[in-house]
Amino acid sequence: MLTISLRGELMPASPIRKLVPYAEDAKKRGTKVYHLNIGQPDIETPPAILDAVRHADIKVLEYSHSAGNESYRKKLVEYYKRNGINVTKDEIIITAGGSEAIMFGFFTCLNPGDEVIIPEPFYANYNGFACAAGVKVVPITSSIETGFALPPIADFEKVITQKTRAIIICSPNNPTGYLYSREEMEALKEICINKKLYLFSDEAYREFCYDGEYISAMHLEGLEENVVLMDTISKRYSACGARLGAFVTKNKTVYEAAMKFAQARLSPPGLAQIMGEAAVDLPDNFFDAPKAEYLKRRNLLVNRLNKMPGVFCPNPGGAFYAMARLPIDDSDKFCQWMLESFSYNNETVMMAPATGFYGTAGLGLNEVRLAYVLNLDAINAAMDCLEKALLEYPGRVEQPELEKLAKS
Amino acid sequence: MLTISLRGELMPASPIRKLVPYAEDAKKRGTKVYHLNIGQPDIETPPAILDAVRHADIKVLEYSHSAGNESYRKKLVEYYKRNGINVTKDEIIITAGGSEAIMFGFFTCLNPGDEVIIPEPFYANYNGFACAAGVKVVPITSSIETGFALPPIADFEKVITQKTRAIIICSPNNPTGYLYSREEMEALKEICINKKLYLFSDEAYREFCYDGEYISAMHLEGLEENVVLMDTISKRYSACGARLGAFVTKNKTVYEAAMKFAQARLSPPGLAQIMGEAAVDLPDNFFDAPKAEYLKRRNLLVNRLNKMPGVFCPNPGGAFYAMARLPIDDSDKFCQWMLESFSYNNETVMMAPATGFYGTAGLGLNEVRLAYVLNLDAINAAMDCLEKALLEYPGRVEQPELEKLAKS
Repeated sequence: MLTISLRGELMPASPIRKLVPYAEDAKKRGTKVYHLNIGQPDIETPPAILDAVRHADIKVLEYSHSAGNESYRKKLVEYYKRNGINVTKDEIIITAGGSEAIMFGFFTCLNPGDEVIIPEPFYANYNGFACAAGVKVVPITSSIETGFALPPIADFEKVITQKTRAIIICSPNNPTGYLYSREEMEALKEICINKKLYLFSDEAYREFCYDGEYISAMHLEGLEENVVLMDTISKRYSACGARLGAFVTKNKTVYEAAMKFAQARLSPPGLAQIMGEAAVDLPDNFFDAPKAEYLKRRNLLVNRLNKMPGVFCPNPGGAFYAMARLPIDDSDKFCQWMLESFSYNNETVMMAPATGFYGTAGLGLNEVRLAYVLNLDAINAAMDCLEKALLEYPGRVEQPELEKLAKS
Repeated sequence: MLTISLRGELMPASPIRKLVPYAEDAKKRGTKVYHLNIGQPDIETPPAILDAVRHADIKVLEYSHSAGNESYRKKLVEYYKRNGINVTKDEIIITAGGSEAIMFGFFTCLNPGDEVIIPEPFYANYNGFACAAGVKVVPITSSIETGFALPPIADFEKVITQKTRAIIICSPNNPTGYLYSREEMEALKEICINKKLYLFSDEAYREFCYDGEYISAMHLEGLEENVVLMDTISKRYSACGARLGAFVTKNKTVYEAAMKFAQARLSPPGLAQIMGEAAVDLPDNFFDAPKAEYLKRRNLLVNRLNKMPGVFCPNPGGAFYAMARLPIDDSDKFCQWMLESFSYNNETVMMAPATGFYGTAGLGLNEVRLAYVLNLDAINAAMDCLEKALLEYPGRVEQPELEKLAKS
């Protein structure tokens, strides 16, 4: 019989997308759905970068260099320099979104059977790339009580084996919004050097730090050989659909091996590279407006959440996500129930159950991720819905039980 | 010590790109280089499809559906129907170039250690995707004497093991230009059904058939469950840089598994999808002009080659490549020598040594691939260079020895 591959079977389905049919049904019933479930901002893509494509003089849309257009890589050198990151154009490979950069990292640095440590909750798609690469994800649990701070280094040491090859971090974090401090970054540096591990640093949300200093893995002196920076323009310019990212490393062996994967797929998206290049020339104050907007949204969202009985939401230092603990039995059931059985003023909210962001089974049952990618009015209306829903939800679990759950 | 992965080490470097530094040096010396080495056509990208992007009303360039925009998939259904291929929008996943479609095929259908049979010479990047997926490529040799016709089915049967899971074909072929006949396609169908193998069909050059009928793997009745079609707009609309392809299958299990890989990378390039969608609305006679142009180029190239003493070039039925047997000792050395040590009227030619297209070591030593992607004047000038070069080349091997080589 024709069968698919084992990795094809094991490959995790997107934990968020499985709720999509319920959202579609709700919309068919005429219910408005506030999408706080995915990191798709409503912020306008800068017209100037779309104009760059509109006005580009293209006769033949040719393959670019497999590492991306040299002119774009040179521009990115400027961009990184403004962020305190010193790299050359020959240390950058332009990729099809941050996704491809993550994939190149897995395939270049890890063998099938190798292990990667990731503080959980973490971006669910790391699981997918790990599965494709045959790599085992070893989660280390961070806790909502500390706002998802870096777990103690002793927790890392406990799980490091002969097979451990890398740690993945994302700061500011998706899904928690947590922003690692300099001390936490230094602690990561120590362990990566001592244990000879790669540090894969997903910095998709670099521009959106509200309550602390942005520290890149590339700011850490002495860690140059260990760091692979995985980047994307998706969030910083609200250009998720462009599919444009970057794989950046000062480790020449890693770079050269990754280039062979890049050559096999010929080149990164061509029109998007024109956008990316123009984006580096946006005025210095470009990020002020979206950042101020996200900050207002965060403050509103977190404030509203913490006023709801039985709800706890730590204040995220960056990105545009918040993780909240709710007085519920099961976040998957609750998020589905919100779409299937609940509405308030004919509106409801779609959120991401936190279970999909934990590698440890059973965690995240009473947590959800909310992306504050909608405007203030929409967030207010969504919070009105959530507040009512928590009172009506048949699976509501009151505080004492919740505390038990949280500690179990 | 930090080490890269085994697949990162084993990953083949692009066999064509290793000659690039020699071409760059030649250009620095002021020598004009005719690039017959890669399939990057000089044909204009249809202005109408670039205009579709220029005039698109985009406020936020959002993630598309992971399978690609529904509107584009619906258009592609029309396009395929015009080519005698009946599929629905839910049997298509839009990909980042044909490359990603090939990758999805390997990861979805084959386990590490599994084997894929490919008639050689074949598109060199199949090696890269096979390496990434941990899959073993088993080549079956086709011969320049038959114009690279499908090897006898007995040759396939000889190498089929418990591990064999798929056959890859590309018709019209890169690098040989060979166009499989209906009989050959039917023979492939038989063996795929009998041995329960997937048939991966790379149909990048569908529009460019000169001396025969185009037969898609999807035309073969009864083979629906076995076929995965790997497609791209790169060649048909001269839009290689767009990075837009498609993974098409009627096998639901394969489709659903491939969708999980598609979800992990979120969505295919957004601006390119606008181009692809507009391309389906190009007038029916759109392909007449490029096809007529390629045909003239093919006729000129093949004619010039076969007039050179000691050269043999079978007439390719499609695509825009020709493989020629030259009176030389080593095609890698010869192609490098052409760039490093030869010029005629201060011009030279870059070609692809055929060694990179064979999986069997030692084959292709006296063959090169020429892509007729330049205009007639350029092809004539390039042939003038090649003719002179073959007379001057110190590693020239006269016919009797050549015959020995060819048969050894």
